[in-house]
Amino acid sequence: MHFTRESLGQLDKRYRTQLINSLSGFKSANLIGTSDKTGQTNLAIVSSVFHLGANPPLMGLIFRPHSVPRHSLQNILETGIFTINQVSEKIYRQAHQSSAKYTQEQSEFNEVGLEAAYLADFKAPFVAESSVKIGLSLVENQTLAVNNTELVIGEIKHIFVPENAIKADGYLDIEGLETVALSGLDSYHVTHRMERLSYAKPNQTLSQLTINGEFSRIHKVG
Amino acid sequence: MHFTRESLGQLDKRYRTQLINSLSGFKSANLIGTSDKTGQTNLAIVSSVFHLGANPPLMGLIFRPHSVPRHSLQNILETGIFTINQVSEKIYRQAHQSSAKYTQEQSEFNEVGLEAAYLADFKAPFVAESSVKIGLSLVENQTLAVNNTELVIGEIKHIFVPENAIKADGYLDIEGLETVALSGLDSYHVTHRMERLSYAKPNQTLSQLTINGEFSRIHKVG
Repeated sequence: MHFTRESLGQLDKRYRTQLINSLSGFKSANLIGTSDKTGQTNLAIVSSVFHLGANPPLMGLIFRPHSVPRHSLQNILETGIFTINQVSEKIYRQAHQSSAKYTQEQSEFNEVGLEAAYLADFKAPFVAESSVKIGLSLVENQTLAVNNTELVIGEIKHIFVPENAIKADGYLDIEGLETVALSGLDSYHVTHRMERLSYAKPNQTLSQLTINGEFSRIHKVG
Repeated sequence: MHFTRESLGQLDKRYRTQLINSLSGFKSANLIGTSDKTGQTNLAIVSSVFHLGANPPLMGLIFRPHSVPRHSLQNILETGIFTINQVSEKIYRQAHQSSAKYTQEQSEFNEVGLEAAYLADFKAPFVAESSVKIGLSLVENQTLAVNNTELVIGEIKHIFVPENAIKADGYLDIEGLETVALSGLDSYHVTHRMERLSYAKPNQTLSQLTINGEFSRIHKVG
């Protein structure tokens, strides 16, 4: 099946939205925790968090214009901090429900039944039920002229994670923590690891790595 | 386990890179196909492709500074076009091998054993073995001051996808197409769908959707 830029423009809006949202592949599912100056909390699921760099440790995310997470964006701009909390198998329905258009006076924590946790004197709320909790400070935000989405970049200030999920080489076993993946707008998936692969070099065969990053079985590729 | 900004700075570099790369959750795995003005092709796996908007249909991705995909970036800037091709279970080892530091004169297509396909008179090469092939034109690129990564935004000009993978409401069943998810730098995962969930509204119970987007079972949440 072949769609062109023109035929995409003629599709029903919802159909097109579903289709285009599936094209990037699997997406991360994270809850963004914020509060305003008065301490009123807000929680929003986003599928747009991405790794930006390890040193300095940076993460980025996209907020769509006029979407529900605008409350989150306002809070981030107001306080300069936010949390990113991975969505797991145990809480994905609550996480999805947080995308409903609650008023600014309602806290999604209460509405969907998740607990705000305050850790290490960080002023933004973490999600108690989340195994991977990250506290960030805002370092840059900009409106992308191309469609008025907002790019937000945060620097990692705190990471809370179960110690046994960190493997010998620093790899975090998020599958073991039951972190879910998203596809499209609304499909939630658990994962099954096929393998970790060694760092690729020209003219060298790939190896399978153990979960701890040690060399295991050799693969012939190419 | 609690890491602070300071303790992260004291970690071994590779350990920190593994850890930070795992924090965003599951990542998409895509192959970026490009060619230079002379037609010399290039292929690079990236985990940073993200959905940016459905109308106009836009996708974004991040190129790290001084990393291998810089050849891809040069080609995109030179020709104004590129392709995004989803990585599936059948080709993930070849896709991973494309991250090796080949010279500009070597084509990763040849080196890893994937086939360049030219479709609909689009000048950038698609990956023949990929089920989801997207042709894009460059609409914006910028260097992010915070760490010199490069943000590239493309507008979708062509989509090639198996017709039976598109469900009644436009949802693309990328799990059915055996698209893989990535975690960290090197871990490849297949997925298992738990369910699709209905559009969330305040004071309304969530429903499970069928793969075609029809209402099925009702869930109580919150």
